[in-house]
Amino acid sequence: MDLNIAACQIEVSPGHPDENTRKIIRHIEEAKAKGDDIVVFPEMAVPGYIIGDEWQNKAFVTDCYRYNEQIVESSEGIVVVWGNVDINKDAAGEDGRIRKLNTAFAAQNGKMVGKFHKTLHPNYREFEDDRHFYSARKLSADKDIAIEDFLQPLQVDINGEQRTIGITLCEDMWSDDYAADPIQILLSKGAECIINISCSPWTWRKNDKRHRVVKDRLKNHSAPLIYVNNIGIQNNGKNVYLFDGDTTVYNPNGSVRKVAEDYKEEVLRVPLNGDHQEGQKKPALSANKDNEELLEGLIYGIQQFFELINASKVVIGISGGVDSSLSAYLLCRALGADNVYAVNMPSKFNSDITKGLAQELAETLHLNYAIVPIQKAFDYTVQQFENTEFTRLDGSGQTTELPLNSLVRENIQARDRGSRIIAGIASALGAVFVNNGNKSETATGYATIYGDINGALAPIADLYKTEVYDLCRHINSIEDENIFPDKLFDIPASAELSDKQNIENGEGDPFVYPYHDQLLKAFIEFRLDPEDILSYYRDGSLEEKLGIEPGLVSQIFDSHQDFIKDLEHTWTLFKTNYFKRIQSPPIIVVSKRAFGFDLRESQIGVHFTHRYGEIKEKLLKEI
Amino acid sequence: MDLNIAACQIEVSPGHPDENTRKIIRHIEEAKAKGDDIVVFPEMAVPGYIIGDEWQNKAFVTDCYRYNEQIVESSEGIVVVWGNVDINKDAAGEDGRIRKLNTAFAAQNGKMVGKFHKTLHPNYREFEDDRHFYSARKLSADKDIAIEDFLQPLQVDINGEQRTIGITLCEDMWSDDYAADPIQILLSKGAECIINISCSPWTWRKNDKRHRVVKDRLKNHSAPLIYVNNIGIQNNGKNVYLFDGDTTVYNPNGSVRKVAEDYKEEVLRVPLNGDHQEGQKKPALSANKDNEELLEGLIYGIQQFFELINASKVVIGISGGVDSSLSAYLLCRALGADNVYAVNMPSKFNSDITKGLAQELAETLHLNYAIVPIQKAFDYTVQQFENTEFTRLDGSGQTTELPLNSLVRENIQARDRGSRIIAGIASALGAVFVNNGNKSETATGYATIYGDINGALAPIADLYKTEVYDLCRHINSIEDENIFPDKLFDIPASAELSDKQNIENGEGDPFVYPYHDQLLKAFIEFRLDPEDILSYYRDGSLEEKLGIEPGLVSQIFDSHQDFIKDLEHTWTLFKTNYFKRIQSPPIIVVSKRAFGFDLRESQIGVHFTHRYGEIKEKLLKEI
Repeated sequence: MDLNIAACQIEVSPGHPDENTRKIIRHIEEAKAKGDDIVVFPEMAVPGYIIGDEWQNKAFVTDCYRYNEQIVESSEGIVVVWGNVDINKDAAGEDGRIRKLNTAFAAQNGKMVGKFHKTLHPNYREFEDDRHFYSARKLSADKDIAIEDFLQPLQVDINGEQRTIGITLCEDMWSDDYAADPIQILLSKGAECIINISCSPWTWRKNDKRHRVVKDRLKNHSAPLIYVNNIGIQNNGKNVYLFDGDTTVYNPNGSVRKVAEDYKEEVLRVPLNGDHQEGQKKPALSANKDNEELLEGLIYGIQQFFELINASKVVIGISGGVDSSLSAYLLCRALGADNVYAVNMPSKFNSDITKGLAQELAETLHLNYAIVPIQKAFDYTVQQFENTEFTRLDGSGQTTELPLNSLVRENIQARDRGSRIIAGIASALGAVFVNNGNKSETATGYATIYGDINGALAPIADLYKTEVYDLCRHINSIEDENIFPDKLFDIPASAELSDKQNIENGEGDPFVYPYHDQLLKAFIEFRLDPEDILSYYRDGSLEEKLGIEPGLVSQIFDSHQDFIKDLEHTWTLFKTNYFKRIQSPPIIVVSKRAFGFDLRESQIGVHFTHRYGEIKEKLLKEI
Repeated sequence: MDLNIAACQIEVSPGHPDENTRKIIRHIEEAKAKGDDIVVFPEMAVPGYIIGDEWQNKAFVTDCYRYNEQIVESSEGIVVVWGNVDINKDAAGEDGRIRKLNTAFAAQNGKMVGKFHKTLHPNYREFEDDRHFYSARKLSADKDIAIEDFLQPLQVDINGEQRTIGITLCEDMWSDDYAADPIQILLSKGAECIINISCSPWTWRKNDKRHRVVKDRLKNHSAPLIYVNNIGIQNNGKNVYLFDGDTTVYNPNGSVRKVAEDYKEEVLRVPLNGDHQEGQKKPALSANKDNEELLEGLIYGIQQFFELINASKVVIGISGGVDSSLSAYLLCRALGADNVYAVNMPSKFNSDITKGLAQELAETLHLNYAIVPIQKAFDYTVQQFENTEFTRLDGSGQTTELPLNSLVRENIQARDRGSRIIAGIASALGAVFVNNGNKSETATGYATIYGDINGALAPIADLYKTEVYDLCRHINSIEDENIFPDKLFDIPASAELSDKQNIENGEGDPFVYPYHDQLLKAFIEFRLDPEDILSYYRDGSLEEKLGIEPGLVSQIFDSHQDFIKDLEHTWTLFKTNYFKRIQSPPIIVVSKRAFGFDLRESQIGVHFTHRYGEIKEKLLKEI
């Protein structure tokens, strides 16, 4: 007989097992009513997954574990598979604490009928399974049993027939870089299908990669595979991860049969061996699809984050530049324009053009708007500093004055905006405020700490400047009217904090974004070193390797020396400005590697490899 | 023949293999000149250990690995043992990147004679070995060889004799919670001594714990053990770890034979089988020793951190309260009073008492001092906000004013101090500034973000308020004159931001520190839950469990209801104020668990376990 499977793509609230369990039980009841044979929930559906060291709170973990009882009780007449933490009170973890295992539980007719511990533990990016959990691999090694013998499928009687089902957790499916392949093992033991429960965040083009991986896993043994993922957001403080769900039923050959809608709670109901037509596969990749996914993810992430922190109103500074314009648009979409309070804070350095653009945007978006100038407060601070001197109290009476150079004055303006006005207004309104920084400035520290780097959330800090422009263009293309006026794309990007940043004279940021964004991406996301960049430059492959326009590099740099100087400067900015990132707000992750706990950094200063020095020496001799 | 061993306690500069290698080679030359047979350096002495995801920079890792060549070359006539990263280009790590191993290398006479990969990988607190490295355990499992057969001692010919030396790395020695015991394995294979190279940060009373662990490791097989650790600081951004060295030669029975001085570069030279007298063991533990170690560590940490970020001058706000007073003292000790610029920033709420205390401290410490009032700037901001309104630009013309309640006004003052004045002065002086927050306020969020939570470093943020007082008393006891006047200990701790915090009326912080500090410590360091606290309270063991004065709890709380209300309030403060810690500065770690990457948190809101609810219900019925 065929099996009716219900794959439940639910929103999981991390750290709230009571809420999650109530939701799971509601879905079990519904599945029973609909006559399903098996109902499946995501990995760690009870506790949530990314909850930091709350895993070390034994009472919390025990609490999560105990919610299993309610789920088991509700399994009368159905098989339930769900993710939760398993605990072993008789054996310690390697940290000496209570041993915990990332586990898929299976229950039927009021009884627990199986437990399947995660075999492969990811320990990269935001993942740190080995920090918290004991793997099936360690269990099998402790018992001196080969992992091939240790892993067993679920054997269960459904409607009088013995069924064999392979149950895996998330990374178990992504086994390419590991010494074990759990899906192969389970299929070779007769599993008629594979269930993979996951808690797998959206990342750029990951769903397409998963489709390829599944095909590969099933190429030797054909069998349907049911991938069940949650929606919602989960965070590790510095990073907010988006869970799109994308719960998928695969045909035995690995082609896609049915996919749940992104970021929506949905139950996929399929007869396991029903008609295996190709169905509902999403449109193929395109630059547009990337932007669509990006936009959808950012809006969802903002919405969910505000819900998480119990906030509805938001304050945002809008300068008339592209970053704050994009932020304001996203906030209006996510929270409603009535909840968005935008403030323009001009000084004498702000041009009529950008002041006009800010006003125009505010009108287009229908938000709440105020103009709060900073000039008087700035002048007062300058005057107060000019009248301040330190006296050495060692009897020498030696005094020190406060020299106010241009950079000092720029920073005073930025901090006046960020810490005096925006933070003050947010606190007065009982609102929070967000940060408008993009990834290019976050990477290079081209922002004032306690000025521009404030905020409860950094919604666009994982987008390079060029991507900010791209997304704005995309938004214009999908909205009925242009949200972002053409002029916004024409003026130079500028902080407008001094005469040297006067856009009316064509002055702006000290970056050639089409080049520097790709260079930064190479450092951040591809983990390349100046040594790699310089060697590509030397062998003429740099533009191809970075994916930039041919000819751009020689257009920007007059000589090898120029190129090297800029490379070392950019690397030095990237490494030394980490001190600002330490104190920056949470970032919504939309790239292959975001600043925060995703890319973990250390204040170690700047190092150039020995080989870098050799290549540089050779290049400089070539001139 | 006896073996002359030189254990080199060097300062390692993380991320700078060139500098570290130069230092290693200097020490090898010196050891050769002194006739040593074996010269030993710490774990990861070439690259440093806590360097974040710089481990994923393949060029950097390869650069580190290549410095091995120079060390091998310099090993003519001596055995050199040192820590570095090993790479295997033919096999990937589980993250798909180049495989890296945390390794002890051994060279002699210009040849590599052995490689010993770390077997036990710590993945708790700041440690994340499995994120970056492939362990000997995984290698042995891949080859289907039991770890007992896989691990082998170094076999080496010294002065014509075959010697057998067990080489281990750091955690390999701390094997209690693991399934393998590398030291036992090596001793059972005839190792005549154990070398353990470590990169092990100072933590409270860890050295004493290590002495006990070594005794335990050697209880079945007697053999000398040489523990070689580095000095310096290493950081993961959010946390600065202190490396005290404490390089130790142990007698075959595990008793201490010789210990290097803390935080000093030093070479311990011992004939391996020389006279095994007990020697130089440090004085036994005492409350005073704890304070001495704490003071030494904090001063060293500040010094090293300023060196790391290339800063010499520091700005600090001093309020006349105990936290800023301690900070100012530590900075003067670490950097010299001539480099410390203290600023007092009174408003109308600051009492003459604290203003006087600030002045007095500045005079005692002989630092550079200025008084910069905030009242006018504050009044201007209030006036500007009172004249500001938002207009809804949807045609409705709806307006929103800015209501300024007391908390809003308090926060404006704090931000004026932190972001306008201190940050501005630091930037004008080309200095950095530090944060004066303690652990109690960091835990409860009793501080204004972008106000008090600013700074390049938080030197005392790992000390609870009661520990701040203790350390101040200790400092008074060791200095010729009282640094901190008696009055400082008499006045209530207060933020002095409103009439309700008037110390002249005895008003102050809303905490009973002797109780709340221990409660917070239970949450943070012992990872306890409100469920645990409430169950201790109910069975009468709470004061004993928290180590607080008998009777204190009933003195503070009038009823079960009062106790519960405060418990839930404190837990809620702790959990919800994490958003401030996300943006707080690096903390010097001196406790069993510091905020940052040591205690990893997630914004998950507040949860109370089911069992907590049951205990609460019973308690409330008891009234």
